[in-house]
Amino acid sequence: MGNAVRRLAVLGSTGSIGRQTLDVVRALPDYFRVIGLAAGRNTDLLAEQVKEFKPEFVSFTASPEDKETRNRLIAAGCKILSLEEIASHPDADIIVVATSGTVGLGATLAAVKAGKTIALANKESLVAAGEIIIAEVEKSGARILPVDSEHSAIWQCLNGEKQSARRILLTASGGPFRDYSKAQMTGVTVEQALKHPSWQMGRKVTVDSATLMNKGLEVIEARWLFNVSIDDIKVLVHPRSIVHSMVEFADGSVKAQLSRPDMRLPIQYALTYPDRLANPSLPSLDWSNFPDLTFEEPDTDKFPCLRLAIESGREGGTFPAVLCAADEAAVDLFLSRRIRFIDIARLVELMLEKHRKIAHPSLEEIMVAGDRARELVFELAGEEDK
Amino acid sequence: MGNAVRRLAVLGSTGSIGRQTLDVVRALPDYFRVIGLAAGRNTDLLAEQVKEFKPEFVSFTASPEDKETRNRLIAAGCKILSLEEIASHPDADIIVVATSGTVGLGATLAAVKAGKTIALANKESLVAAGEIIIAEVEKSGARILPVDSEHSAIWQCLNGEKQSARRILLTASGGPFRDYSKAQMTGVTVEQALKHPSWQMGRKVTVDSATLMNKGLEVIEARWLFNVSIDDIKVLVHPRSIVHSMVEFADGSVKAQLSRPDMRLPIQYALTYPDRLANPSLPSLDWSNFPDLTFEEPDTDKFPCLRLAIESGREGGTFPAVLCAADEAAVDLFLSRRIRFIDIARLVELMLEKHRKIAHPSLEEIMVAGDRARELVFELAGEEDK
Repeated sequence: MGNAVRRLAVLGSTGSIGRQTLDVVRALPDYFRVIGLAAGRNTDLLAEQVKEFKPEFVSFTASPEDKETRNRLIAAGCKILSLEEIASHPDADIIVVATSGTVGLGATLAAVKAGKTIALANKESLVAAGEIIIAEVEKSGARILPVDSEHSAIWQCLNGEKQSARRILLTASGGPFRDYSKAQMTGVTVEQALKHPSWQMGRKVTVDSATLMNKGLEVIEARWLFNVSIDDIKVLVHPRSIVHSMVEFADGSVKAQLSRPDMRLPIQYALTYPDRLANPSLPSLDWSNFPDLTFEEPDTDKFPCLRLAIESGREGGTFPAVLCAADEAAVDLFLSRRIRFIDIARLVELMLEKHRKIAHPSLEEIMVAGDRARELVFELAGEEDK
Repeated sequence: MGNAVRRLAVLGSTGSIGRQTLDVVRALPDYFRVIGLAAGRNTDLLAEQVKEFKPEFVSFTASPEDKETRNRLIAAGCKILSLEEIASHPDADIIVVATSGTVGLGATLAAVKAGKTIALANKESLVAAGEIIIAEVEKSGARILPVDSEHSAIWQCLNGEKQSARRILLTASGGPFRDYSKAQMTGVTVEQALKHPSWQMGRKVTVDSATLMNKGLEVIEARWLFNVSIDDIKVLVHPRSIVHSMVEFADGSVKAQLSRPDMRLPIQYALTYPDRLANPSLPSLDWSNFPDLTFEEPDTDKFPCLRLAIESGREGGTFPAVLCAADEAAVDLFLSRRIRFIDIARLVELMLEKHRKIAHPSLEEIMVAGDRARELVFELAGEEDK
């Protein structure tokens, strides 16, 4: 793309990653042009973003009373398209997929089939449908650039290397309950789970970080992004969240990527790659008073979600989709205070035990398996409520 | 060079780096062929190496009684050449310059002028004559690949990056006297100075590590190797010697290279670049019981050699050559127990104060400035002895 302005479509623009993506665009206004925005139900913020960035195309989750939003956006000069139409639009150079859940998976697939460069922040895409997506990437020549800080770190470390990784060392902050006893964890409140020690993120991913499910999902994502076996990915607890991950090479040399925990850096790197641009609003590490860096093995007994995710990834087929969906439903129940924190892992494990794997599922089979797990979790919690 | 066997000439084959280079060749016998060896006075070890590696060419420091060695090497089927002839030999793909001191500088220049790929372990070359060598590299298209663990780390971190470094973070073990008071340092013995906490190295470089002069010389080398300003190189004391250096990029992202402290890894990387080869004899990092990594600013008041080197590097011209030569002489005097440990810095500082800089010196002027400083140090120490 050389030095031409990069035309972005930001899907999920009102979420945490979407808003930080637009922060990067604000900081580097000559480098980017936002041509498309897509959001869910936060239409007020979407309307503000439309006013500021003047995209040609916009998409939002339709609902009966949305006529007003529709008219407002059309009046602002936008053409209203579907999420998939924006994701595959010929005018877009980079599609930022920051839409969460299954909706994001559809958008990712549309962008992949159109051979786009995709800055991928949606976890479900690769976790649930990695095999299908990577097969489509190989057909279309699309490029998936990771936005997650850990995967960005791995990608940065692999930059310019001829060989793939011998081993990936995926770091985890350990979440807010790293030092809790198992007994203490039974009493964890929603408020406690939403207080992450290093990162500012959305609610679902913050709870997933507290259970270490998030790290497990990242292991599965890394497996697809970097073509390594699940067993060559090692999770290390690193509470400072300064080393964002590492790669070990065939000769035993390890490369690590470090920075202050700020999502705008990996977002910017995905958008400017292979360039790195000075952005004064991004923080630098302060070496004059640098903290000690520690690394330790995670306790999968205390954090069973990590074990469950790794096992699902190793098992493959429809298992990761069931894991994802069961977790989504369980976290939802926890956030609405209907189950305890430790029930999240219990319910996910139950769903995996009940599941009958399909080895190389179609997208439809993945969706069905996920939907079924999601429903079952809600049902089960309902029965337990009685 | 593809998958063809790489033909090596190892200059300084009986020194610490030379022997470890041959260890790497032993571990990867199908990958390398040693076509030339050069050594100083350790002709017994040279003869053993000739027997094992069967090089076509050999060079050794001539002395009147060396007829026997000469005949022995000729009988082993070797052709005897000068160091410069081996360094520029058309049959050699990679020249490993592990010869120390000014002799190494001559060999480096010969290899550079012949447009060779040079695995450079000789410090004096770039410290004393960086400007001349880099100008010759640009003329001939030679490639200088660093062998020092710190410069190898920086090079590995820069691998595949389009832009140069915004800042280099050069790590230092801090040497054996990191926790000594200034008073304690006046009484340091030769035995104490030769006990390095992390690395096995030759005597001169071990003492230079104890004074932090070695780190200062590395700052000057890094300046030439990576085309950064002296003031964009920051030294960090990292006693574990696991992070071998780091690079900060324009966007604030930092990449680090980690490994167990073993010189065979950076040597192998320079010889196999851009490949990385599995070598079971190289140690891997053990993540199951990983030490805390600490980084702190060096105390240049306690270690004035670091400050002197950085100032000389900033000043440029003939200053770094004077620094190098004065240090060589002073370390020599310390090792023969004629001066105290803290006198090394004092003598080097005196030489720099006395020196009148030549801004863009010729090789001859560099040599003369160095020789003069070396003589003066010995003279001064002699006078003080009286």
